[in-house]
Amino acid sequence: MAEKTETAKKENDNVIFVGKKPTMSYVLAVITQFSEGTKEVFIKARGRSISRAVDVVEVVKNKFIDTLKYTIDIGTEEVEDEGKRLNVSTISIKLTK
Amino acid sequence: MAEKTETAKKENDNVIFVGKKPTMSYVLAVITQFSEGTKEVFIKARGRSISRAVDVVEVVKNKFIDTLKYTIDIGTEEVEDEGKRLNVSTISIKLTK
Repeated sequence: MAEKTETAKKENDNVIFVGKKPTMSYVLAVITQFSEGTKEVFIKARGRSISRAVDVVEVVKNKFIDTLKYTIDIGTEEVEDEGKRLNVSTISIKLTK
Repeated sequence: MAEKTETAKKENDNVIFVGKKPTMSYVLAVITQFSEGTKEVFIKARGRSISRAVDVVEVVKNKFIDTLKYTIDIGTEEVEDEGKRLNVSTISIKLTK
């Protein structure tokens, strides 16, 4: 059981959800992942945070890892806000060194 | 000379710059382009408008053209704001039916 939890943790570790913190917090998280030997890091964001997710990738690429490769996928999620159903755009960016 | 201007116009016609207008304005522009027979439409945005550019693609795909294919590229541009040089993220999304 303990092993299973550990596996689940490892699977989620390489996903960074970009929200409202400063861009550099997420940049640091990406750099940390790669320096720990992670091969693929996923950056995910939705709504207004999508712009910041792109900023994170650009800063990592331009200032830290110039060999960075990325694949971008976009989508739509339904969220509920005060009883109303809203569609919100999402982005998922796969990063490899 | 008149012909040259016409060619230049045609080349730019399939690029839609997403800014601060409502999402549906840009959705309409994309639909119009495709209905006029354009094979590839490019959506470009920078900074905070990147999120809206993604919204535009998602609305076009989910509500109008379900066979829509896209390729996303991101980058950085340098802009000058009150004499200061700032880096701003950019997105370019190539759409095909």
